Amino acid sequence: MNHAAPALDPRADILDLTRQIIDIESVSGNERALADAVEAALRAHAPHLRIERDGDTVLARTELGRDQRVLLAGHLDTVPVAGNLPSSLRTRDGVEELVGRGSCDMKGGVAVFLQLAVEAAEPDVDLTWIFYDHEEVAAADNSLTRIAREKPQWLEADFAILGEPTSAGVEGGCKGTMKLEVTAHGKAAHSARDWVGENAIHALSPVLERLAAYEARRAVIDGLEYRECLNAVAISGGIAGNVIPDRASATLNYRFAPDTSPEQAEAHVREVLAGLPVDIEVTDSAAGALPGLDTAPARAFLEALGEGVRIDAKQGWTDVARFAALGTPAVNFGPGDPLLAHTDDEHIPVADLAACRTALRRWLGLEA
Amino acid sequence: MNHAAPALDPRADILDLTRQIIDIESVSGNERALADAVEAALRAHAPHLRIERDGDTVLARTELGRDQRVLLAGHLDTVPVAGNLPSSLRTRDGVEELVGRGSCDMKGGVAVFLQLAVEAAEPDVDLTWIFYDHEEVAAADNSLTRIAREKPQWLEADFAILGEPTSAGVEGGCKGTMKLEVTAHGKAAHSARDWVGENAIHALSPVLERLAAYEARRAVIDGLEYRECLNAVAISGGIAGNVIPDRASATLNYRFAPDTSPEQAEAHVREVLAGLPVDIEVTDSAAGALPGLDTAPARAFLEALGEGVRIDAKQGWTDVARFAALGTPAVNFGPGDPLLAHTDDEHIPVADLAACRTALRRWLGLEA
Repeated sequence: MNHAAPALDPRADILDLTRQIIDIESVSGNERALADAVEAALRAHAPHLRIERDGDTVLARTELGRDQRVLLAGHLDTVPVAGNLPSSLRTRDGVEELVGRGSCDMKGGVAVFLQLAVEAAEPDVDLTWIFYDHEEVAAADNSLTRIAREKPQWLEADFAILGEPTSAGVEGGCKGTMKLEVTAHGKAAHSARDWVGENAIHALSPVLERLAAYEARRAVIDGLEYRECLNAVAISGGIAGNVIPDRASATLNYRFAPDTSPEQAEAHVREVLAGLPVDIEVTDSAAGALPGLDTAPARAFLEALGEGVRIDAKQGWTDVARFAALGTPAVNFGPGDPLLAHTDDEHIPVADLAACRTALRRWLGLEA
Repeated sequence: MNHAAPALDPRADILDLTRQIIDIESVSGNERALADAVEAALRAHAPHLRIERDGDTVLARTELGRDQRVLLAGHLDTVPVAGNLPSSLRTRDGVEELVGRGSCDMKGGVAVFLQLAVEAAEPDVDLTWIFYDHEEVAAADNSLTRIAREKPQWLEADFAILGEPTSAGVEGGCKGTMKLEVTAHGKAAHSARDWVGENAIHALSPVLERLAAYEARRAVIDGLEYRECLNAVAISGGIAGNVIPDRASATLNYRFAPDTSPEQAEAHVREVLAGLPVDIEVTDSAAGALPGLDTAPARAFLEALGEGVRIDAKQGWTDVARFAALGTPAVNFGPGDPLLAHTDDEHIPVADLAACRTALRRWLGLEA
C-alpha cells in the first residue's frame, strides 16, 4: 500500500466497527481506501489467516486442513451517497437505528465478518473470507467475476454465506433474473390519416394484456417458497404528437425460481407471448441459486443458529448465484431490511448487528 | 424597411417566382427578409392594394366596394432546413419536380397568391391577401392569433382560401385535433417482489386494448368524408430495470370531424375509456372547420375551377379552422402533396404551380 488507510479496529464494539466502515465512503469504483483498511486490519489482527490482495478485493483464509470449508463474503462498495454520510444513530419507536449509506447494503455484514475473521482463529471448519468490490454495478465489473476466472481456488467451498441484508434471518438461494426487450413494429403515418399506417403502440396491447393477466408460479424448494414475477418494467414509443409510431417496445423483467434455468425461463416468456407479432430479445440474464439447505454444512449452520431464526427464500438476485454456479450451496445472512437497501433513508436496527454476530459466533463455537 | 430585401419579381414565370421565394430561407422566427421582399413587391407592383405591415406579416386588400370579400392566405415560414436549400429542379419518371424546403409547405401557394395579388386589379369580389409568419410553431405564436386579436377586421371575409398543399385539388374544412394525457398509477416495488406493488404499465393494458379495438367514425359533411382517428402517439413508463413502476402514461391524439366540438370530442374520449382507473387530462385542442361548400362564394369558387378538380375533405388540421372560428367557410387549395410537407425530400410537381394559378385566374376572371 502506497497511501495511508484510515484505521479500522476489528476488536472494537460491533456498532463502532460498523460505523468506522460506513464512514469510509466506498461508492463502486472508489473502494480502495476501505479495501486498504480491511487488509491492514486483517494483517495486524489475524495472523492465523493467509491474506491476499487482488485489486480492491481482500481475500483471506484459514488453512487448518479441516474436512469442510465455508466461504463468507461481503462486498465493500455501496450505491451513490445521498447526503447520508457520515453515519448517525437515532431512536425511533424505541428502536435504536444506525443510519447511513451502506449500513444495510452491506457494511453491517462486512463489519460482522471482519470481526469474526479476526476472532475465529481455530474454527471447526476452514473459513474463507472475501471482501470484494464492484458489486453494485454491471456483473462483468463485479470482482467476483474476475476472481472466479483468475483464482477459482479462492471460491472453492462446501457452503457459502453472503452477508446481504436479511434482517438477521436466513434467506436461502435466490431467484434468477432475465431482461427481455419486446418490440412491436408498425408503419408510420400522419395521425390525421391513421388508416395508411399501423400503430406500433397499439400492437403492444396484447403483450400488456397477457402480462396483466399472468399468474406467476410459486415454487417450493427445500421448504422455501420462491414467487416468480413477470413484469414490464419500462415501456416507450412515439415519434411526435402528430405521427402514428412505427415502433414501440417494452422491457420485461422475469424473476424465475432457482429450479429453472435461463434457457427454460426464456422459453417460458416466449410461450407466454406466443403468437403475438412482436420481436423478443433477451438482453440480460442470470441464473438463480438453489438454497441447498439439505446439504450437511447448511444443516450444521442452521442448527447452530437455533430455532428462533427466520428461514425464508431470497426473492431478489444476489451473488449467492455465483456460488451456486460453482456448485456451492449458499445463503444470505446479514443485518438490515433488504427493502431499505439503496434508499436515501438506508438504516439498520443496531440490534441486528449483535444478533448476526452472536449467531455466527455460536456456529463457529466462539459462543457458549 | 431599414435593410435591403432580396428582390422578388411577381411578374416572372410562376416557377421562377416560386424559386425566388424558396431561396429566401425563412424558417419560423426568421421570416423578416421574405416578408420584406413580399411587401416590397406588392408596393412596387400592386398600386390597387391597400398594404399594411404587421410584424413579419404582410396584409393587403382591394377596397372596391364589392358585395363579397374573399380572403387568400399563405404562411411565409417553413420548418427547419434539411440540406434542401437552395431549390433545384429534377425530372423523375417523366415528371418535372421543384425540390427544396418550403416548396410544398407552402411557398408554392405563396408564389401563386403573390402573383395573383399583383394581377387581379379589378376582381369581381374584393380580395384580402395575407402572407403571415410563425405557422409552423405553437398556435399562440402564429401571427394569425395576433391579427385576429388586434386587427380582426383584416380577417373578415365571406370565404377563405388557404394555400396549404392539396395537389392542386380542393380540400374542404379540416378535422379538429386534441391531445390527451392518460396516466395510470400503481405502487412501486422491487421487481423480485411484485406482489407488494402494483404495476402502472400493466394498468395501461385496457387503455391500449380499447384504442386497438376502436372503430372510428366517418362523418360525411357537404359530400366530403372526414375519417376520425384516435391513437396513442406516445407511451412511457419505467423507473429502473428492477423496479415495478408506479406511473405510466400514454399520449392520445384524437382527430375529430368538424361537426364535433372540442367539448364533445373530450366527452367522447372519456366515454371510450370509461370505467378504467386512469387519469385523463386534455393538454391541447383545436376545433376543426366545416367545409361550407354550400355557401354562395364557395359554390362560385368550385364552379370556376371546373369539373376536373378533385374535391376532398382535409384530414389534417390547418389554419382554415381559424377562419371557421370567425364564421368564414374556408378551403385548402395549393400545389404539392401534403404528405411531402416537412420531409427532407420536400418537392412539388412543377405542373401543380400552373394548375393552381390557372384555376384561380379562371375564378378571378383573368383567364378566358
